[in-house]
Amino acid sequence: MSELKKLSKVDFGSPEKVIEILKAYFGDRLTTSLAVRERHGTDESFHAPRSPDAVVFACSTEDVQYAVKVCSKHQVPIIAYGTGTSLEGHVAALYGGICIDLSQMNEVVSVNSEDLDCTVQAGVTRKQLNEYLRDMGLFFPVDPGADASIGGMASTRASGTNAVRYGTMREAVMSLKVVLADGRIIRTATRSRKSSAGYDLTRLFVGSEGTLGIITEITLRLHGIPEAISAAICSFPSIDDAVGSVIETIQLGIPVARIELLDDATMMGVNSFSKTDYPVSHTLFYEFHGSQTSVEEHSRQAQDIAAGFGGGDFKWETKAEDRNRLWQARHDALYAMNALRPGSKPMVTDVCVPISQLAQCISETKADIECSSIMAPIAGHAGDGNFHVVYLVDTDSHGELKEAGDMHDRLVARALALGGTCTGEHGIGYGKIDFLNAELGEGVSVMRSIKLALDPNNIMNPGKIINV
Amino acid sequence: MSELKKLSKVDFGSPEKVIEILKAYFGDRLTTSLAVRERHGTDESFHAPRSPDAVVFACSTEDVQYAVKVCSKHQVPIIAYGTGTSLEGHVAALYGGICIDLSQMNEVVSVNSEDLDCTVQAGVTRKQLNEYLRDMGLFFPVDPGADASIGGMASTRASGTNAVRYGTMREAVMSLKVVLADGRIIRTATRSRKSSAGYDLTRLFVGSEGTLGIITEITLRLHGIPEAISAAICSFPSIDDAVGSVIETIQLGIPVARIELLDDATMMGVNSFSKTDYPVSHTLFYEFHGSQTSVEEHSRQAQDIAAGFGGGDFKWETKAEDRNRLWQARHDALYAMNALRPGSKPMVTDVCVPISQLAQCISETKADIECSSIMAPIAGHAGDGNFHVVYLVDTDSHGELKEAGDMHDRLVARALALGGTCTGEHGIGYGKIDFLNAELGEGVSVMRSIKLALDPNNIMNPGKIINV
Repeated sequence: MSELKKLSKVDFGSPEKVIEILKAYFGDRLTTSLAVRERHGTDESFHAPRSPDAVVFACSTEDVQYAVKVCSKHQVPIIAYGTGTSLEGHVAALYGGICIDLSQMNEVVSVNSEDLDCTVQAGVTRKQLNEYLRDMGLFFPVDPGADASIGGMASTRASGTNAVRYGTMREAVMSLKVVLADGRIIRTATRSRKSSAGYDLTRLFVGSEGTLGIITEITLRLHGIPEAISAAICSFPSIDDAVGSVIETIQLGIPVARIELLDDATMMGVNSFSKTDYPVSHTLFYEFHGSQTSVEEHSRQAQDIAAGFGGGDFKWETKAEDRNRLWQARHDALYAMNALRPGSKPMVTDVCVPISQLAQCISETKADIECSSIMAPIAGHAGDGNFHVVYLVDTDSHGELKEAGDMHDRLVARALALGGTCTGEHGIGYGKIDFLNAELGEGVSVMRSIKLALDPNNIMNPGKIINV
Repeated sequence: MSELKKLSKVDFGSPEKVIEILKAYFGDRLTTSLAVRERHGTDESFHAPRSPDAVVFACSTEDVQYAVKVCSKHQVPIIAYGTGTSLEGHVAALYGGICIDLSQMNEVVSVNSEDLDCTVQAGVTRKQLNEYLRDMGLFFPVDPGADASIGGMASTRASGTNAVRYGTMREAVMSLKVVLADGRIIRTATRSRKSSAGYDLTRLFVGSEGTLGIITEITLRLHGIPEAISAAICSFPSIDDAVGSVIETIQLGIPVARIELLDDATMMGVNSFSKTDYPVSHTLFYEFHGSQTSVEEHSRQAQDIAAGFGGGDFKWETKAEDRNRLWQARHDALYAMNALRPGSKPMVTDVCVPISQLAQCISETKADIECSSIMAPIAGHAGDGNFHVVYLVDTDSHGELKEAGDMHDRLVARALALGGTCTGEHGIGYGKIDFLNAELGEGVSVMRSIKLALDPNNIMNPGKIINV
C-alpha cells in the first residue's frame, strides 16, 4: 500500500463552512453519510481509500461551477467522481474535501452522425453511449473493460482492447467543456477534425486526472459499425511465441482491431470464472473489423503469422453473441485472476513498452514472478506493448506486500529501461507519482508549473500526478 | 497586412550584449548580415516580415540551450527558424532578438523499424526523412506541401494531404526534446505507443509555435510503405457535387489516403503552371493505399460515389512517376494560383469545419468571392473539412487589401459559425490572434496562464499565438 505524502506548501480550508453553503444550494443532493462518503473515496485499486467530507451530486455544468467556486473561495479540495473504477487511487480524498459525483450528468447531448462525432455529459458511461448509438450504425471504440464514465475515461486517458486500431482517449476526444479551479468554464476546441489554433488544451486536460479542472462535457469521435467483425482465439506453446506473433502482426501493419494476450495463469482463471473451456496456455484474443473481404484477408494473414510461431488453429467467433461471450471473458479476466487465490487482493498495475521490447519485458517479468512466492498472472493489450500484472497478495501479510511491492518496482524499472512508460492506461493517481518522476524527470517540473498556473491553491484533486 | 501589436507588460533587454556573448561561443555561426537577417524574419505569408538582430546556426541541443540561457539572462527574444515556410508570420522577429536557425541540425538520430518510429533532429526536412526511410520500406506521411523541417511542422501542428488517413503532427509526434525558456532540457515522453503518465507535454508543445520552448528533437510514428498505391483525378459539374462526393466518401468510412479539392480557378492555374491538361472544372485528387485487394475495393467505392454526384471518369495514375507528377501539380497549386494574376501577391489562409458543414462553407465563400473584385481560388484537404482560400491582391492597392481583408474576416466568421476553427493547419502566428480569441474566448486565457508559467519573461517568440 502506498503511503500518503504530506503536502507542505498548502493549507487547505476547513470543509464545514463549505458544506453549509453547498447544502443550501444542493439540498438533498449533498450528503455527508459515511457509507456514501466511503464509497466515493474508494476505487478499484489496492491503494488506501480516503473519504471526502461530503459528496454532492451535480446535474449540470453550472452545478459543478457553483461547487468549485465555493470550494475555491474557501480553499477546500474538490475531487471529481464518475464510476469509481480507477486503478491508482484517483478518487481518494487524500486531504478531505468535497467529492463531486458526476454520474447524474448522463445525457447524450448531441450526435452528429454525418460528422461521426457526439457530445456527451461526463457521467455517460461507455456502454450507455454504445447502446444509444447502435441504431445509428455508429460506435465509440474506446473500451477499458470497466463500464467507466466518459468523463473519467477522458481524465485518465483510458484506452483498452480497441486502442491498437482506434487509438486511446487522446485520439478519441475532440473537445471538452471544463470547469477551471476558479469556476470559469471553457471549451477547449471546436468540432473540426483538425486545428492549429493555439495550444492543444484538449490534450492537456485529457489525462490530467481532475487536477487542472473538472470535465463536464466531452465531444468524441465516433466510427461506423464495421460491415464485418470476426473474433478468434489462438493458443501458443510459449509466451515468447505469443508475443512474437503479436509483434510481427503489428510490424506488418495488419490492422487488427484487437490483439490481446492472456498468459496460462490468466487462462486458468478465465476458464474457472467464466465457465469456458479454452486451452490453458498462453493465448491471443483477436478481433478484425472491416469489409467482408478485408476481414478475411487480414485474419488469414494473422493466422499465417501465428502458425509460424507454433500457434494452434484459430477458434473463430463470428456471431455477435459468441463474440460478446469471448470479450466478456477477456474483460472479466481481472476477477478471474483474483479468483485464482481466494481471499487474496489483486495489486493491479500496467506498463507499456515499445513493441520491439515487449517479449523481453514480459519474459523477464515472468522470470521474476517465478522466482517469487507471489502468484501474478499477466494479461494485456499486447498490440500496443501494454500489459498488466496482477499480484495476488494476502494483505494481512506484511512480507507479501513487501515482496509484491518490490516486484512492482522492478517491473516499472524494467519497462523504463526498455524505453517504456510506467503506465500505459491506468494513470498516475497517487500510486505512481515516484515512477512518473523516474520516467520524466525535469518534465514533471513543467507539469508542476502548469498545475500551479491553473490551480494555484492546489484544490483540484490534490496529491495526484504531482506533489506540488 | 496585419498590424503589429505593442506588448505592454514586458520590456525586453537590448540585444547588443547578447550578440557579443553569443559571438564568442558561435563564432562564424552567428551573423548580423542584413541579407541573412531579412531572410530569417520572412516567411511565405502575406504578413509583414521583421528581421531579428542576429541569426545563430545551431548544431546541437546544447547550442540551442546555450543561446537560450544567454537570451534568458538578458531578456532578449528568441525565435526558432526551420525552413521559413510558415504562413502566419511565425518567424517575424516582432520585437527583434536572436533567431536560432535549426537547419544544420539535420541528422536522423535513429530509426526503429521494428517499432515503426524514428527520432530526428529538428532541422531534418520531410523529404530528406522520406529519402532516408525509403529503402527500409517505411515512410513518414505528414505532407504539408512545402519541404518543411520536422521541427517547424511539429511547432505549427502541420498536416496536409495525407492527414485524412494518417492524422496530423498531433498524431505523428510521439515525443519531443525541448529546450525551455530558462535553458532546461526536457524530454516530453517515452517511445511507447501510448501512456497515461501525467499531463500530455508532447501535445502541449506540438502547435505551440516556439512560444513555450524550442523543439530540438522529435520522435515520430512511421508507417510501412503500402503494398499498393493508386491515384486518380475526377472532375465534377459543380463545387457542391465535388464536396458532396467527399462528404459521402468520408461518412461511409472509406479509408482514402488523400482526397483533395481544387476548384475550377485553381485547375486553370495548375494547367498553365504545371503544363498539364486536366479539365478546367471542380476536381478531386484521390489516393488509395493498402493491399491490391483493398485499394481496388476502396477506389471502386469512391468511384461509385463520385458517379452519383455527376463526376466524370476517374483518370488513374498507378505508376510512381505519374503519381508524383500529379501530386507535384497539387503541391504547386499555390504558385499556380498566384500565376493566375501576374504581379499579385497571394494572401493565403485556411479554415476547417466539420465535414457536414463543408459544402455550405465553401459555397457561401464562393458566392462572397463572386460578389467581390478579388480573384480567389480555393483548394484544400476536403476530407478533413479543411480548405484554403488564396486572395490574389495588388499589394499597392489599399482598396484591394481592405476588400480582401474584409473577405477574410467573413470567411473565418463563417467557419466559426459553422462549428469550425480559424485554422486547420497553418497556425496562429501573429496573423490570426484576434481570430483565436473569437474562437476560444476564455480558453485563450488558459493558454496565457500556461505561457506565463513556462516563459515568464515572454522571450520565446513573443507576439505569436497570444498577446501576453
